Parts: sequence; C-alpha cells; structure tokens
Amino acid sequence: MVDTAFFKNNGPFTLEQIAKIIGAEFTDSCNPKDKIYDIATMEKAGSNEICFFYDRKAKEKAVNIKAKACVTNQDLQSWIPYGISVLVVDNPKLAFLKLNQAMYAEYVPENMVHESATIAKTAKVGQNCYIGANVVIEDDALIGDNCRLEANCYIGKGCKIGNNCRIGVGAYVTYTIMGNDCYIYAGAKLGADGFGFNTIGGKHIRIPQVGRLIIGNDVEVGANSCIDRGALDDTIIGDGCRIDNLVQIAHNDKMGRGCIIVSQTGIAGSCTFGDYVVCGGQTGFADHLTVGSGAQIGAQSGIMRDVEAQTVVMGTPAVPFKDFMRQVSFLQRNSKK
Amino acid sequence: MVDTAFFKNNGPFTLEQIAKIIGAEFTDSCNPKDKIYDIATMEKAGSNEICFFYDRKAKEKAVNIKAKACVTNQDLQSWIPYGISVLVVDNPKLAFLKLNQAMYAEYVPENMVHESATIAKTAKVGQNCYIGANVVIEDDALIGDNCRLEANCYIGKGCKIGNNCRIGVGAYVTYTIMGNDCYIYAGAKLGADGFGFNTIGGKHIRIPQVGRLIIGNDVEVGANSCIDRGALDDTIIGDGCRIDNLVQIAHNDKMGRGCIIVSQTGIAGSCTFGDYVVCGGQTGFADHLTVGSGAQIGAQSGIMRDVEAQTVVMGTPAVPFKDFMRQVSFLQRNSKK
Amino acid sequence: MVDTAFFKNNGPFTLEQIAKIIGAEFTDSCNPKDKIYDIATMEKAGSNEICFFYDRKAKEKAVNIKAKACVTNQDLQSWIPYGISVLVVDNPKLAFLKLNQAMYAEYVPENMVHESATIAKTAKVGQNCYIGANVVIEDDALIGDNCRLEANCYIGKGCKIGNNCRIGVGAYVTYTIMGNDCYIYAGAKLGADGFGFNTIGGKHIRIPQVGRLIIGNDVEVGANSCIDRGALDDTIIGDGCRIDNLVQIAHNDKMGRGCIIVSQTGIAGSCTFGDYVVCGGQTGFADHLTVGSGAQIGAQSGIMRDVEAQTVVMGTPAVPFKDFMRQVSFLQRNSKK
Repeated sequence: MVDTAFFKNNGPFTLEQIAKIIGAEFTDSCNPKDKIYDIATMEKAGSNEICFFYDRKAKEKAVNIKAKACVTNQDLQSWIPYGISVLVVDNPKLAFLKLNQAMYAEYVPENMVHESATIAKTAKVGQNCYIGANVVIEDDALIGDNCRLEANCYIGKGCKIGNNCRIGVGAYVTYTIMGNDCYIYAGAKLGADGFGFNTIGGKHIRIPQVGRLIIGNDVEVGANSCIDRGALDDTIIGDGCRIDNLVQIAHNDKMGRGCIIVSQTGIAGSCTFGDYVVCGGQTGFADHLTVGSGAQIGAQSGIMRDVEAQTVVMGTPAVPFKDFMRQVSFLQRNSKK
Repeated sequence: MVDTAFFKNNGPFTLEQIAKIIGAEFTDSCNPKDKIYDIATMEKAGSNEICFFYDRKAKEKAVNIKAKACVTNQDLQSWIPYGISVLVVDNPKLAFLKLNQAMYAEYVPENMVHESATIAKTAKVGQNCYIGANVVIEDDALIGDNCRLEANCYIGKGCKIGNNCRIGVGAYVTYTIMGNDCYIYAGAKLGADGFGFNTIGGKHIRIPQVGRLIIGNDVEVGANSCIDRGALDDTIIGDGCRIDNLVQIAHNDKMGRGCIIVSQTGIAGSCTFGDYVVCGGQTGFADHLTVGSGAQIGAQSGIMRDVEAQTVVMGTPAVPFKDFMRQVSFLQRNSKK
Repeated sequence: MVDTAFFKNNGPFTLEQIAKIIGAEFTDSCNPKDKIYDIATMEKAGSNEICFFYDRKAKEKAVNIKAKACVTNQDLQSWIPYGISVLVVDNPKLAFLKLNQAMYAEYVPENMVHESATIAKTAKVGQNCYIGANVVIEDDALIGDNCRLEANCYIGKGCKIGNNCRIGVGAYVTYTIMGNDCYIYAGAKLGADGFGFNTIGGKHIRIPQVGRLIIGNDVEVGANSCIDRGALDDTIIGDGCRIDNLVQIAHNDKMGRGCIIVSQTGIAGSCTFGDYVVCGGQTGFADHLTVGSGAQIGAQSGIMRDVEAQTVVMGTPAVPFKDFMRQVSFLQRNSKK
C-alpha cells in the first residue's frame, strides 16, 4: 500500500478502468465494478488491492494470494486461487508499469526559483523550471525548459542542460553538454577532472583535462556516481543509457545507446562501448578497451581485453560465460580431493 | 594524544578515577594518585598517558611500552615491562571504550536553527535540535527531539526522523521513516529511486518506485553510501545495523537487526538478510537472495545463491570458507607445476 | 578542439613558439611560421591543429594523421605521413603536458567571498581566496592563502588548510590538517568517523573516533572518495599522493609519498603503505597490512597479507603477478578437458 505521505494515489479505479489502462481481458471471475485502491505484492495484497504475477518461480506465492484481483498471463493464470479476479494480458510486467504510472504520482514541486538560489547573470534558465534552495548556476550556463534543479545542486560555467531534465539534490554538473529528458540522481558528480598525470622526477604532474562530458537524451545517472570529463577528447554517454549508483566512468569513455551499468561498476579511461551493453554490479574494465554492442558482462567480472558484440563473459580475467562455469566446477570438483 | 582543536579532553584523571570508570583492579605497580592526561597507542603513549593491550599478536609492542599505565587482562599482563602501572580488567577492549567515552567528547554545536536553513511551513522540528546552515526540510517532514541536522543536509517531503538522530553534512533523506538514535554520515543518500525499468522497443522505461525506506533504531549509515527506497514494497534496515562508507543497498532489500556491512559492499534488489549478518568489504550480492542470521561473508565475495544461517562463505561464486581455502591452495599448488 | 565555453585558448601559437615551449627540434617538414590553433587526438586533428604520437601501438592511427603538425620522438617519426610537420622531442608525453598547460587554461573565479557563505567569527581565511556560494567554515578553522573553496563545501571546526588548496563543490573536510597545494574533488568526504565499535550484549557500541586526518602537500582526492579520521592515532596521507574517485580509506591508514590509488579501491583500517605504492581499480585490502614502497597491486586484487616493496601482485588472495598468470592459464587449460 503506497504511503500517501510520499506519493499521490489517483485511485480507486474499477476493474473496468484498470482493464482499459493495461489492455487486459477479463475472465469470468471479474466484476467490472469492483474497486481497487492500491497495488501490492502477491504476499501483501489484501481484499481491496491488486497484484501482479509474472514469474513462474513465484508460483508458491501465487497460490496464496489474498488480493481482490491479480494480473497475469495465459500460461500462469491457472495457479491463481478460485475467488480472485483474474485479468489476463500478454505482458504482466508491462501491465504493472502502466497501472503503476496511472495510479501513482510523485509530488512534483511547483515551478519557482527559490530565493536562496544563486544564478549568475549570464546564465539562462528556460520556462517552467523549478530551481530549489541553495542551487548554484554559474556563468553562461543554459538550462532548458521544464527542468527541475533540486536543492543544493550545482551547474558549472558554460554547461548546457536540455529540456525536461531533473538534476538531483547535491548533484554536480560541470563541463557538460546534456540532452533532453535526463535524470541525474542526488550526489552524482558529472564532469570532474579525470585521473591523469605524468610522473616527472617523482612528482605526479596533472595533465590538464580539457575535454567535455557529452550526455545524450534520456540518460539516468545514479546517486553518488561519477563520470569524468574527457582529457582532450570528450567523454560520451549515449541516448537512453541507465547508470546505477556509485558507478565510476573515467575520462574519454564513450558509450553507445541504451547501455545498462549496474552499481559500483568501474570503467577505466578511453573505453568504447557499443549499444545496449549490460554490465553487472561491481564489474571493472581496464583502459582503452572496446566492448561490442549487446555484450553482457557478469557481476564482479574484471575485463582486461576487448569483448565481442553479443557475447556473455564473466570472471577475472573474464572468459565466455560457459568457460567461467566450467572453471568454477573444475575447481570445486578437484580441490576437494 | 588527542588534538583539543577537535575534541574536548575531560582529563586529567587519576588512576583511581580510571579504575572506577573501567571497573579495573589495581596491581601492586599502581599509585592511585598518579595522573593520566591522555590515552595513546602502545607505541606512542608517554609518561603521562595510558594505553591498552588486548591483542596477543601485539606482544612485541607490549614489551616496549613507555606509558605511565597500561590496561590489560589477566593472561596478558606478564608481557608488560616492570615499572608500568598495570590495571587488570576482564575485557580491555571494553575498558578502552569506556575510558575513551569518559575522557573525550566531541564539540557539539549548540541548539539553534541557522538563519540560512529552509524549513517548509508544514514541517515540524522537535525540541532541542540543531539545524545547520543551508539545511533544507521539505513539506510535512517530522523531525524528532534532540536531533542534529548538519549543514547542507536535505530532508524530503513527508519524511519522519525519530529522536536523537544525527544527519550528516550534505546527507539526503527522502521517502524515509527513521527510528531513534540513528546517525547518517556525510553525503549518504537515503531513499533515492531504485534501478528499475522495463525495456520496451529498445527504450528503458522507468518503473515508478513507490515504496519507502524504513530505518530502525540505532542505525548508522556511512559516508556517501546509498540506500534506495522500495519499488512497491519497502526497503527495510533493522535496528542496530552498521553500514560503512560507499555501500550500495538496492530497492526492496530487507535487513534484520545488527547487521554489519563493510565498505563498498553492493546488495542487489529484493534480498532478505537475517540478524547479525556480517559482510566484508566489497562483497556483492545478486538479487532476490536470502542470507540467514549470523552468516559471515568474506571480503570481495560474490554471492549468487542463498546463504544459510551461521555459515561462513567466501569467493566468487562464494563457497564455504574451508572450500575456498582448499580451492586457493589447490590452484597455487597445481599451477606451478 | 577545446570548447571555449569551458576553457580559455591562449592560442594560436606558431610552430616556432611551440618548439620553444616543448623543447622540440624542427625537422625539414616544418614551417616555423605556421599557426596552430588547437591540440587534438591523432584521429581528429585537422589542418590547423597539432597532435601527439608516443605509443607505438597507435601506429595505425599515425599513418592516417591529417593534422598540420605532430610531435613525436626519434624512433616513431618515420610512421608519420609525408606533408605533416614533425617536431621531435625526447618525451612526447611530457611535451603534450607542456603544450596543454601553455595553450589552455581553466576559467578561475575571481577572489571573493560569496554573500551566502557562512564563516564562523573565529575562523580565519588567508589572502586571495575564493569562497563560493553556501560554503560553510566552522569555528577556529584556518584557511591559507590563495585557496579556492567551491560552492557548498564544508570545513569543520578547527581544521587547518594550507596555501593554494582547492576544495571542490560539496566536499567535506573535518578533523583534518591539510598541507599546501592540495585538490579535494567534488563530494569527497575527509575526516568522517571510522567504522569502529564493540559488540556488547548484541549492541554495537560506537568507539569514539578521536584521531585526526593528516594530509600532506600536493595531494589530490577524487570525487566522492572517503577518508576516515583516525580512531585514536591519526590517518595519514603522504605528500604527492593521487587518490581517484570513490575510493575508501579507513581509520588509521598511513600512506607514504606519491602513492597512486585508482578508483573504487578500499583499504581497511590501520594499513601502512610505503612510498609510490600503486593500486589498480577496485583493489581491496584487509586491515593492519603493510605494503612496501613501490609495490604494485593489480586491479580487483584482494590483499590479505603484507606486500613486499617493489613487488607486483594480483588476484584474490593476491599472489605474485607471474603466479597469477600461471593460475589463470592452468585453469583455462584444464577446465576445458
């Protein structure tokens, strides 16, 4: 049950309304006029609530459902107990997404510029923006329309932020050109100096980092993640990428479209990723590597060589997934002798 | 020697006072009227200072002690050189804790609301609170009594913070219900969006994250750590948990009482931990796992399956600790041939 | 081509000027009066630009250079196509550094104290400092000359910051004595409580952390990294250390001069590092270890024992690099049978 201290509940909805929203077919068990007040998990949903069943592994939970209604697909519907209203869709996960979006909404702050914000005279802020308390926007920065800059965030000199972007509390954006529809989470640091120096006479002399960070459209960067700007060339994050919390992306990395980078992954400098690369949590990449489109990197893997497109690799150093499993099983079998 | 620029020194204390504070017995070597001005390490303690000896591995340091006095236990006291005042207790580590607490104190800022703080009209702040510079407290938030909200921290709409909590500099608390006596360190991010989306037609569509983050009593969360709120259900951190710096805890994770999570550990979504689980540094967990009470996870381990209560596991993928050591030794032995 | 929204371009420079700056010899191909407007990569440099070629592995790029000029060394110059002006130096990497420093400059904010900064009456700020928006400086803090304290950063009670230091946006410095010429990146957390407690009757009782953090001269600490202060003794970071983003350094760690700690490394408490230790990304160290000067730790390694000076180790648990490669090859060979 969603806590209305935190989210708006647009409900209740009748089953009829819900069927329309998610594109479901009714089954005989449904009374179209029944009202649904909330979405809940299969375990917790009660007599006014609806739940979703889409993973066969959860079938033990399905047989114990106490919800008023359950959305599932053709194959799984027989597991749901008699007396529960069953709505059938092709893709229950997508249906969950749709009903969630329809039923709940975040409280969005009203457009305003908080009196404590510091906006340079040469900066430009578009229409319908929210600029929270203590926000700092430096000289020549350009903020698009419908943006939400949350409290204590910082936009550095000359940055360009597209339309409909959300910059989270305490986030930091410098030397960055950002597209539309991006969401930078609280505490993320974009465009900081890359880790580059020459060691001369025992002294590590900083190499000025004079590249930029280019962020495409519809990109998300997780809480406290860091993406460094380029050293000379740019660091580039393609459209639609999803970057989780506490990720490190170094200078000159270039990422294609739709990549998914799970938490605590670290990518050393000058790597090039294709489209839709998926990195599990805590993976690490040496510098100057090329990772082909659609490659999948298992969690905690250490990547020391290029990865071909559409392959699945795992381990440190990473090998094809089947080889990794063979190594694991070889080691377990033989070490016990 | 503690730097009084940073900490108050309530000393000096006589050995008599100290014996009382830590519940020690004197030995013949002690003059109860001797004054102790500071606590120091065995290596550094000088003629006005006291040190603590509780780890047999440090016996080489013990024989070279130059301190006025040393606290130790029955078994270890014979290592301490003649001429040092020896105080004997059952648990010298606990004695250290007690004397430390008695002798030193942090400078606590006086209760006040800094003029630069932004507190929404509908928010409520309890009695005897310190609200630092640039703090932001949003609508409907409730802050208990005796809380310390340090500079630049952010409390989101509708959050409830119990009594005696300390929210560190630049910390971020949203969608959270927090108990009493919690300490959230500088830069920690609580209640951010979980990493959840459906990929439809090549686009990663965000699943609204409408759960909360529930934090029990007496919980600590380290600097720059991230705990995401639940997707639909809540993320839960039980009473007495200790979470170190740069840890990632994902949506819907549920942790029992007293768990210890060392730095840079990452726990994927929907994991369930029992009580007093201990995770070494940089451990990683796949999603939807169950970890039994008292389980201990070795540093850098990668957990892909459930872990039984009271077991010790290590490695990637993690195996029982003995098996891990066998694998290591097998590999070292055989690879050299 | 550097974006002048973000960096100043002091150019154009003639080849003659450039030869002087980097100490190069002309070859016959050069016209000393030719003007260079920018530095670029070998792939991207065009007819007004200069590039640098210093890595033999990049020779395929060298043969396709379209730049006006290229700086390289004696050995590599024959790869560069006819028609490109070639400048020869002993160390092209160093030449790149020098020309970069000469040609580009960051926009440095003018000295000022922003009206929104909160500076305690008992704090002292040196000459020629920049104190940005919402900066907080607590009681008795001492800031040296020529410092740049960026927006939203926090300097705790009693801290001493040397001359020419830069404290990044939202950085946090407490219980710290810092030398000259340091650069603390955005969001770094210095001097937070270490992770120390005694468990008594099921309750984890915090051990007061009454040590300090001592930072030498010319130290850099990356974005969102954390260095805890000492528990009783001090945490020490020696002169010239370079610490990347998202690194964790625990209480009582002591680091010599010039160490290089790559991103996401975690060092548990009371470790002692010599000089010029290099840690690859995501390495982890157990507590109380000694790592000798010049030791190199491969990425993702897990260090459970002391490491001797000048050795190269890798793996979890780490072994000499050759042994690691032998283990990898043994496992790959034998697991496929």
